[in-house]
Amino acid sequence: MIAQTPETPYYVVLFTTIRTNIDEGYAEMADKLEELAKEQPGYLGIESARDGVGITASYWTDLESIKQWKNQVDHTVARELGREKWYQEYKTRIARVERDYGFKR
Amino acid sequence: MIAQTPETPYYVVLFTTIRTNIDEGYAEMADKLEELAKEQPGYLGIESARDGVGITASYWTDLESIKQWKNQVDHTVARELGREKWYQEYKTRIARVERDYGFKR
Repeated sequence: MIAQTPETPYYVVLFTTIRTNIDEGYAEMADKLEELAKEQPGYLGIESARDGVGITASYWTDLESIKQWKNQVDHTVARELGREKWYQEYKTRIARVERDYGFKR
Repeated sequence: MIAQTPETPYYVVLFTTIRTNIDEGYAEMADKLEELAKEQPGYLGIESARDGVGITASYWTDLESIKQWKNQVDHTVARELGREKWYQEYKTRIARVERDYGFKR
């Protein structure tokens, strides 16, 4: 699904990952985190795909909401497990969406 | 591959897509466009994944480079073919990366 975001400006957290071959609890945690994100103040939507590299784009109203999400307890635990087990490498980028446009058949 | 981007700020073009079931020339065009992007001034890197939704993040030094890439002739032709044949829906978001951090095992 393409996220239904409001008029710009808004923010995106772009999380690009390369996985290890360790699966232990990964899918469950990914699902749980997505559910948790949806309950956070300022959450606007999420898009996610993986083939080789994984890319998750979550959309937020403002930087303060992103900071709260970053410091949310379960998210912090997930990040530690991610470093310990699930990810070979990752990069998080926080960006301000200044313009958007789309097409729908 | 995770793109090796420089220190912030830089820009990202986030292109989220849902494909039709028409393949005619799609893979060739995607490869060609990626090659072309790499030759553009201001290009920094690209990350791409698809499962269901497709997400391509291309990174650029500045908005002027993004504008030039948007108006590049082959890219314009590709966009028209995309609307005509390959995409059910897409959204393009242009964002300024303000902060990034990563992890590598």
